Amino acid sequence: MTAHAIRQIRVTPIAFRDPPLLNAAGIHEPWALRSIIEVETACGRVGINETYGDQSMLDVLARVAPALQGLSPWDLNAMEMRVQALVQPSGRSSEFLGELISLAPGTHVSKNVAKVVSAFEVAMLDLQGQLANAPVVDLLGGAARDTVPFSAYLFFKYAEHIDKPYAADPYGEGISPEQMVAQARRMIDQYGFKSIKLKAGALPPEQEVAAMLALAKAFPGTPLRIDPNANWTVATSLKAVEQLRGVLEYYEDPAPGLDGMAEVARQCDVPLATNMVVTDYKEFADNVRLGCPVRIVLSDHHYWGGLRATQQLSRLCQTFDMGLSMHSNSHLGISLTAMTHLAASVPHLSYACDTHYPWQDEEVVQGGRLKFEDGSLRVPRGPGLGVTMDREALARLHDNYLHCGIRNRDDLGQMRKYDPTFTGKQPRF
Amino acid sequence: MTAHAIRQIRVTPIAFRDPPLLNAAGIHEPWALRSIIEVETACGRVGINETYGDQSMLDVLARVAPALQGLSPWDLNAMEMRVQALVQPSGRSSEFLGELISLAPGTHVSKNVAKVVSAFEVAMLDLQGQLANAPVVDLLGGAARDTVPFSAYLFFKYAEHIDKPYAADPYGEGISPEQMVAQARRMIDQYGFKSIKLKAGALPPEQEVAAMLALAKAFPGTPLRIDPNANWTVATSLKAVEQLRGVLEYYEDPAPGLDGMAEVARQCDVPLATNMVVTDYKEFADNVRLGCPVRIVLSDHHYWGGLRATQQLSRLCQTFDMGLSMHSNSHLGISLTAMTHLAASVPHLSYACDTHYPWQDEEVVQGGRLKFEDGSLRVPRGPGLGVTMDREALARLHDNYLHCGIRNRDDLGQMRKYDPTFTGKQPRF
Repeated sequence: MTAHAIRQIRVTPIAFRDPPLLNAAGIHEPWALRSIIEVETACGRVGINETYGDQSMLDVLARVAPALQGLSPWDLNAMEMRVQALVQPSGRSSEFLGELISLAPGTHVSKNVAKVVSAFEVAMLDLQGQLANAPVVDLLGGAARDTVPFSAYLFFKYAEHIDKPYAADPYGEGISPEQMVAQARRMIDQYGFKSIKLKAGALPPEQEVAAMLALAKAFPGTPLRIDPNANWTVATSLKAVEQLRGVLEYYEDPAPGLDGMAEVARQCDVPLATNMVVTDYKEFADNVRLGCPVRIVLSDHHYWGGLRATQQLSRLCQTFDMGLSMHSNSHLGISLTAMTHLAASVPHLSYACDTHYPWQDEEVVQGGRLKFEDGSLRVPRGPGLGVTMDREALARLHDNYLHCGIRNRDDLGQMRKYDPTFTGKQPRF
Repeated sequence: MTAHAIRQIRVTPIAFRDPPLLNAAGIHEPWALRSIIEVETACGRVGINETYGDQSMLDVLARVAPALQGLSPWDLNAMEMRVQALVQPSGRSSEFLGELISLAPGTHVSKNVAKVVSAFEVAMLDLQGQLANAPVVDLLGGAARDTVPFSAYLFFKYAEHIDKPYAADPYGEGISPEQMVAQARRMIDQYGFKSIKLKAGALPPEQEVAAMLALAKAFPGTPLRIDPNANWTVATSLKAVEQLRGVLEYYEDPAPGLDGMAEVARQCDVPLATNMVVTDYKEFADNVRLGCPVRIVLSDHHYWGGLRATQQLSRLCQTFDMGLSMHSNSHLGISLTAMTHLAASVPHLSYACDTHYPWQDEEVVQGGRLKFEDGSLRVPRGPGLGVTMDREALARLHDNYLHCGIRNRDDLGQMRKYDPTFTGKQPRF
C-alpha cells in the first residue's frame, strides 16, 4: 500500500437540532440526521464529507467502505466502478443493495449509486486538495466567482416541537403572512441574503400565496421563489401562479410528475424549476424529449453523483438552454462548504443557492458556524475543502444521534403527532 | 505574482513530414503544421501542449497568450473567461478575432473559443500535474483503464508527393484493394492495432467499397469503419452501406450535413458516427432534437474545449444513449499523450481511438516516437502529461516550419498540382 492509499473509512452518524418546519410531507422532526465520512490514507491524512444519515444510507456506506481500501484519493473512476459493482450490479438493478436507500418516495434505484459515489468523492477531493496543496474549487477548474450567494429559505413553522425536546428556536411561529415577513426580515438581517425562497405545499394555497404577496410587498426587487413540493394539482398550480403574476423568479415543483409539470408549463410563462422530476440523467433526457417543460434544474451534488458530476450536469443544462440552481436538505458546514466550492466553479450556476443552514444552530467543523457576508459565502482557499472536523463536536453530535431515537427521517409520522388524521396524500391541494 | 503564476507563454509553430494521403478535400501536403504551446510559471515550471498550427490559429494564440499572465495553472475557468472575452466578445460573435480561425469549411465561430481554451487547458493541466505530483489522468478522475486502444487508420495514397521533397514513406502506393490490405497488414504488424478505419471519399465509391470488402476478408473479426468525410450523396451512402452489409462497426460521416445524416440513418441500421455534424454542444442539441440520427460522437479535445470538456461530452453521450469514440488530425506525441490520458479517464469511451500517428516519422518529445503495445498506449504515470519536450527536436521541427512554405493547410490546392481540374466540390460522389 502506497503512502497516499486509502487505509480506512469511518462513517459516523450524527443528529442535530432541527426546528418544526412544515412541508408537503409533514413536519421536520426535532433531530435531523446526517453522516460524516472520514477517508484516511496510509500516511494519516483524512479527507472529510457529510451526507445523508438514514439507516439505509449508513448500511450501504458500511458495505461499500471496505471495498475502497487501497485506492488512491485520485482514483475517482475506480471508486465509482467499485460502488457500481456493489450497489447496482449489472442485471440486478432493482434488487440487492439497491432498495436499501430510499430517501424520497419515487426515488429510483439508479440514484443510489450516485448518492454513494458523491459521499466518497467529496472526501477524496478533500484529500486530493491536501495532496496538491490546492482548494477543492481549484481541482474543479478554479473559481469563476470568489463568493457564492445563497437565498433566504423560509418555512411555515410552529413555534415549538410538540414534545418540546429543547428550547424553542428564535424564529417563533411562522404561519401568517406577517409572521413570514418577520421570519424573512430576521433571516436577511442576520445573513444578508438577496433572494427569498418559500417552502410551500404545507398550508392551504391561498395562505401561501398571501404570504408570497406580503413578501413581495415587504422586499420589493428581491427575487422570490415558491416551492409547493408537488403538493398542488395542476389547476391549483395555475391558479396560484396567476395570483403571483410578476412576483416569481422561478416556480419550483408546483405539480407532481414530469407530466404534471409539462401541463403547468404549457399554460404558464414563469420558468419551472425542479429537484423532483429531473434528479438524474435519465430524467434529464426525458425532460429534453418533452421539449424542456422544466427550464431550471435545482442540482444537489449529494444525489447527482458528486461535485464533478454536477459540473457535467451544468454542461447538460447549458447545452439545452436550461438554467441551474442548487437544492438543499438540512445540513451542516461540510455540505455547505462543498456546495460553495462547487457553485464557485460553475459559471453557469447563476441563481442564489438554497440552503437550510440558517435553521441549524450546531456545527461539526472547527471554528463553529460558517459566516455569511451579504448573503454569500467566500470560497475557502486552504487545501482541500478548507474546513476540518471538530472532533469534540463530532462526538457530541454522534451522542445526539445515539439518544435521539430517530433512525430514518419521517416527516409524515411526526406530523401525525400533531394531527392524527394527517394522511400525507399528495397532491393535497 | 505568486511562484506558480503563469509568467509567459511561448507558441512555436512546427512542421513535420506527412505522406501524400488522399481525402475528400484533396491530398495532404508534404508538411503538416502544428503548434507547440509552452506555459511557464514564475517558478520556472513549463507545461506543454500541441495544437493546430495554421496562421489563423497562431494569430489568435498570440493575441490571447499575454492575457493569461498571472493566472494560476489551476485557474481554468478564469482562463476560459479571458479567452471568451478576447476571441468571442459577447454581441460580436461573428466578427473580431472570431473569423481568424477557420480550420474547416463550415467551421462555426462558436468553436473558436473551444479550440483556444483547449490549447491552453492541456498545458495548464500538465502544470497542475507537476504541482500535484500526479499524472493528468488522475486530475481527470483517475484511470478507468491502464491502456488505451487505437485503430489502424488507413488512407488511399500515392507512393510519393508530386514534388518529391524527401524520400518516399515505406507504405508505398495505396489505391487497389490489394495495396490497402498490404497497408493494413504493415500497420497492424508494426503497431498491433485491433480495429481498422479507412478514410474514404477520395476514390470512386465502388473502389472504396471493394477495398473495405477486401479488408473484411483479410482481417475477419476485426472491427471496420469507413469515413467518406461527407463526400457521398445520401443515395451513394445507402448503396455503399448495403454493399458493406455485416462489415461495419460504425459508419462515419457518409453524407453531408445533419439532415443528410438523418436521411441516411432512416434507411440504414449501421450506427452513424460523426466528427463533422456534431462538433459542438449546439450541434449536439440539434442532433438530440432530431431523435439522434447520429449515434456516435467522434470527440476531439482540440476542438471540443479540452480534456475536461470532452469528459462532459461523454456525460452528454451517456445521457442520450450515444456512443463516444475519438477523432484525430495529423499530430505528434504531445497530442497523442493528451488523448491517451483523456481516453483512459472516460469509461464511456469504448471504441478504439483514431490516430494519424503511424503516418508521421518525426517527434517533438524526449525519447522519440511513442511505443504502441498490441495497438494500445499505456497511460503515462509521471507527473502531468508525463512527456517532456525535446528542445533540439523542437528547433528542428520549427526549422521545418520556417522552410516548408506552408502557412495554412490546403489539401485542395495540393490536389490541383496533381489534377488541375480538381474542383473540391462536395459531395463528389
